[in-house]
Amino acid sequence: MSKLVIVGTVAFDAIETPFGKTDKILGGAATFIGLAAAHFDIDIAAVSVVGSDFPQEYLDLLSRKNIDISGIEIVKNGKTFFWSGKYHNDMNSRDTLVTELNTLANFNPVVPKHYRDANIVVLGNLHPIVQLSVLDQMLNKPKLVVLDTMNFWMDSALEDLHQVMKRVDVITINDEEARQLTGEYSLVVAARKIHAMGPKYVVIKKGEHGALLFHNEHVFYAPALPLEEVFDPTGAGDTFAGGFAGYLSKTGDISFENMKNAVIYGSTLASFCVEKFGTLRMEHLKNEEIHKRLLQFKQLTQFEIKLG
Amino acid sequence: MSKLVIVGTVAFDAIETPFGKTDKILGGAATFIGLAAAHFDIDIAAVSVVGSDFPQEYLDLLSRKNIDISGIEIVKNGKTFFWSGKYHNDMNSRDTLVTELNTLANFNPVVPKHYRDANIVVLGNLHPIVQLSVLDQMLNKPKLVVLDTMNFWMDSALEDLHQVMKRVDVITINDEEARQLTGEYSLVVAARKIHAMGPKYVVIKKGEHGALLFHNEHVFYAPALPLEEVFDPTGAGDTFAGGFAGYLSKTGDISFENMKNAVIYGSTLASFCVEKFGTLRMEHLKNEEIHKRLLQFKQLTQFEIKLG
Repeated sequence: MSKLVIVGTVAFDAIETPFGKTDKILGGAATFIGLAAAHFDIDIAAVSVVGSDFPQEYLDLLSRKNIDISGIEIVKNGKTFFWSGKYHNDMNSRDTLVTELNTLANFNPVVPKHYRDANIVVLGNLHPIVQLSVLDQMLNKPKLVVLDTMNFWMDSALEDLHQVMKRVDVITINDEEARQLTGEYSLVVAARKIHAMGPKYVVIKKGEHGALLFHNEHVFYAPALPLEEVFDPTGAGDTFAGGFAGYLSKTGDISFENMKNAVIYGSTLASFCVEKFGTLRMEHLKNEEIHKRLLQFKQLTQFEIKLG
Repeated sequence: MSKLVIVGTVAFDAIETPFGKTDKILGGAATFIGLAAAHFDIDIAAVSVVGSDFPQEYLDLLSRKNIDISGIEIVKNGKTFFWSGKYHNDMNSRDTLVTELNTLANFNPVVPKHYRDANIVVLGNLHPIVQLSVLDQMLNKPKLVVLDTMNFWMDSALEDLHQVMKRVDVITINDEEARQLTGEYSLVVAARKIHAMGPKYVVIKKGEHGALLFHNEHVFYAPALPLEEVFDPTGAGDTFAGGFAGYLSKTGDISFENMKNAVIYGSTLASFCVEKFGTLRMEHLKNEEIHKRLLQFKQLTQFEIKLG
């Protein structure tokens, strides 16, 4: 069975949207990536760190989804990473209210031995040095390394970020981050500059406007499914990355044509994630629902122009 | 041969973008709609008004594209409608610098007799009362009426706009206008409310993020082709409408499935329009170029997921 390694936060989130607010609930990049990838019949390990305040039921939830949690360190008397944010009315922007690094401040990831030959590695949003440490632990160069990052690391650890970018195949970032990283407004030009920094494949996430996949001169555009309401965008980008990587791991085919499908799977899973607070929708998502929504994506985008 | 009637401005534009600025050049909604529709083998009439300051060479240009200009009134000693605008650096927003209505202020459109049985009518952006007057001149209810409008009429002539909306089949507006018209942020909900105002088909244009076509519970999403640079967005929306209506007029098939193709044609033509100032790119656009770009649109959007 294909093995997938995910490094990223497993965390508490407290979220406020125009629709309501939560107390501390399950969150974190590795959580969302894992829950999405769990829909493919592959062997998944999450590498992360939490404190002893982290509820056993959350760990049990991940285990139940067949995510190996032996790489999630539990720091005695430590506190779990906590993020709190408030979304604006347009749901496209948010303010961070609280960031408590806690145990994440001294996180030394350890990839479980059984997973050091994984064919796909997803480097969830974390300090680039932590991401590099995971790559260094792999026995061979993985077939595909997917990097997710954000503007925070561009501001605070740009040199390290460039180091990790040199060693990854795919980067997923949002449109504003692509512009910040390259100083280019045009996403076509930005993607070309990011190619030159390392990643052969560049995925630019545009939220409600979909996602673009660039590879050399090839482009693929997966729209987001138009939704009646976006309840909580938290984790949508990670869910996208998890669906993308999970599909590629399952199929074992990393051609550009198959990567288009992976983008569609990522978009499909992300379209569910935003329907409820936090991980709630993803916890109970059934494969039949995914299948049905993939058909909606086909109807949404496919056309039959006959070119004479 | 199918007949298409277009009413809209034929005008002077002066445009400033980050790439440069123009003196008074050929512009206007009917001009862009006509130049796009001219790529289909149909019989087109433009209904508009200009002043005696309007250069004969511009009229000749339209005639050369097989656009019947007998419905373009030339007002002796009158001045042609003039619009001037300046685009911001992101090219998604602009300031209007000058609007001189001139002869447009007293425009009474007259549809040439030969065109009063046209099967498709495009009501380009104009006062809703002028748009209604065109509909009243048609001998029979056209097979399809396409309405383009903008926020200006929502602010200044909302009641009249609602009257014309009741009599059209398709409306094309941009995302902000859809939100303004309905008070809904979600475009899915906005489209549903606009349906209830009259149009069975709602096209929401999102500029660089593509266009959505809604019809009852059906949705189609045509992304915009990612471009290295957008040189001048002026006329892109009108070009979209012209391509959309031209394709439907040519094929005579107004099913939802064929309307998807019409949206793709509209998007394809609009992707050329923005490459040069004003009408420059559209004046010299060849059918082979359109054909090639349609193939790019296919590669951009089509995927082959096998659903088990």
